Amino acid sequence: MPTSLGNAVPEPDPAAADAARQRQAMLTKPAGALGRLEDLSVWAAAVQGRCPPRPFERVRVVVFAGDHGIARAGVSAYPVEVTAQMVRNFLAGGAAVNVLAAVTGASVRVVDMAVDADTPAEVCAFKVRRGSGRIDTEDALGPEQTRQAFAAGTEIADEEIDGGADLLICGDMGIGNTTPAAVIVAALAGSEPVEVIGRGTGIDDDTWMRKLSAIRDALRRVRGSTAPLALLQLAGGADIAAMAGFLAQAAVRRTPALLDGLVPTTAALVAREVTPAAVQWWLACHRSTEPAHAIALSRLGLDPILDLGLRLGEGTGALVALPVLDAAVRTLGEMATFAEASVSGGT
Amino acid sequence: MPTSLGNAVPEPDPAAADAARQRQAMLTKPAGALGRLEDLSVWAAAVQGRCPPRPFERVRVVVFAGDHGIARAGVSAYPVEVTAQMVRNFLAGGAAVNVLAAVTGASVRVVDMAVDADTPAEVCAFKVRRGSGRIDTEDALGPEQTRQAFAAGTEIADEEIDGGADLLICGDMGIGNTTPAAVIVAALAGSEPVEVIGRGTGIDDDTWMRKLSAIRDALRRVRGSTAPLALLQLAGGADIAAMAGFLAQAAVRRTPALLDGLVPTTAALVAREVTPAAVQWWLACHRSTEPAHAIALSRLGLDPILDLGLRLGEGTGALVALPVLDAAVRTLGEMATFAEASVSGGT
Repeated sequence: MPTSLGNAVPEPDPAAADAARQRQAMLTKPAGALGRLEDLSVWAAAVQGRCPPRPFERVRVVVFAGDHGIARAGVSAYPVEVTAQMVRNFLAGGAAVNVLAAVTGASVRVVDMAVDADTPAEVCAFKVRRGSGRIDTEDALGPEQTRQAFAAGTEIADEEIDGGADLLICGDMGIGNTTPAAVIVAALAGSEPVEVIGRGTGIDDDTWMRKLSAIRDALRRVRGSTAPLALLQLAGGADIAAMAGFLAQAAVRRTPALLDGLVPTTAALVAREVTPAAVQWWLACHRSTEPAHAIALSRLGLDPILDLGLRLGEGTGALVALPVLDAAVRTLGEMATFAEASVSGGT
Repeated sequence: MPTSLGNAVPEPDPAAADAARQRQAMLTKPAGALGRLEDLSVWAAAVQGRCPPRPFERVRVVVFAGDHGIARAGVSAYPVEVTAQMVRNFLAGGAAVNVLAAVTGASVRVVDMAVDADTPAEVCAFKVRRGSGRIDTEDALGPEQTRQAFAAGTEIADEEIDGGADLLICGDMGIGNTTPAAVIVAALAGSEPVEVIGRGTGIDDDTWMRKLSAIRDALRRVRGSTAPLALLQLAGGADIAAMAGFLAQAAVRRTPALLDGLVPTTAALVAREVTPAAVQWWLACHRSTEPAHAIALSRLGLDPILDLGLRLGEGTGALVALPVLDAAVRTLGEMATFAEASVSGGT
């Protein structure tokens, strides 16, 4: 249950982090010359509790799929059917996340939390409902559905960690899902609707105006509520609630997780309200073109690794950043030291 | 010979680029949602002359090593001996470039162009001299040495391409080598010494003052010369001249090349003076912390993929960016189209 998670999140290992910093200073390169890679290697050592850290070998992407009633307000460039079609595309291996997972050696799991269609049995064990509520006029979820979805996320994290995953990636798929995410970010950051709205899948100006109205109306319904479960219930959805539970539980289980774009980062922002220490177990992988994403990252105090104009979701941005993390871990573990290579140190 | 290269550089294939843009629009994702990856995939198609492009499989890093007399002016945090020590470290596989090449499936060749020490026979076939001249008081090279070093670079590119390389990476190693690079960038960009000076391997304030004097004095000796061979002779060195020849010849041979940090990018800036069209065959991989690097990239009109505070050289930044290029190529080639996956398109 969310309220009991807060005290359960441990700190990453400071001794391993110190050992990593000391080892960086011994490697055959000028101190600090690997820049951000050195910071990432220290983080990897801390979350693994060992120096040098092992290369991550069991990287698991979980794509949380869900539809949103707000899509019926005409806030997306794509029809609602695309969510279910993309779930099948994930299962068939044809989506960007499948290609990028194959390249990086990661594997992909799809979970239907609230797709507004029947999906294959292998993905719908945790399904809460068909489509979350239309948040400009109604709650996204009932109170029990909110707890159920959050708990599903924690259970999925447990399954993956018990199955051997050493690094989790939280991905999203859902037509219309940047609208609830923008509302939640605005509610937690105190932003105006025009600050958090983005072009999503690539909407035109008329759709943008409808999306702005939807965000404004939903934000009016939310006003005053910043409690995490209340926000997920009022303006989130079963997919976002599950992502929040997934990310919180990863930290409880001392398992690092990579954040992708706006929707998982929004879930992280909510999860941080439940478990403040969890943010130390998460890495921000990229800055998407969604304005609310930059706001959420800033609120979390996370500096993304990449800035490549990505806005696809699915976990793709995290998978593009994964080799950078791998490069950081490998250089710390495998480079020769000044002493080993008989190279003179600096002044 | 440099003066004959200009007309020999072909354009990357515009038809393959168009085909890549059209294919991107058919893939199961919102148009443009892969951001910079889509641009990179178009570039890969153009330089390979085919769509979809093949994943790069024979990536070859050539590290051009050389000492610089200016190091005797006390412009580096490391002693001159480190260049030769690092050449041995490269051969033993202990340097960052070795680790990152192993991770990405690339291979590394080291070439001693002007190391101020005896090096193993396998690396010194093209060696021009022991240490290039101290550029604050003398020319870096004689005229014949300049031509010889540039030609060595073209010959090395030919060897690698004839040996099957489908992507070249130009790396550098040399204590003091950011000083000549800064001078060349300042000469070509019309910059003041304080605009191009950087901390190199991590110099302190006293060393910074000596480096500034060295740059100022060398720039005074250069003033007025912007012809590429004259610049390499006055203020470059055998390593930088070879890199310029290497990068120019890669373009002549229709083989793409990745630029790493300040020193290879400076060589690219000089090579562009010889062969203006060559820049289309090069990709800027990262922005280092050296101020002159950003100036050189801007002059070349190249936007780097990564900005991670790297300042190591050796080709390391290019190897960290390589998986991003690979992700771009793989998604273009391997994702399902809307038609194949029966996914509805957008409006």
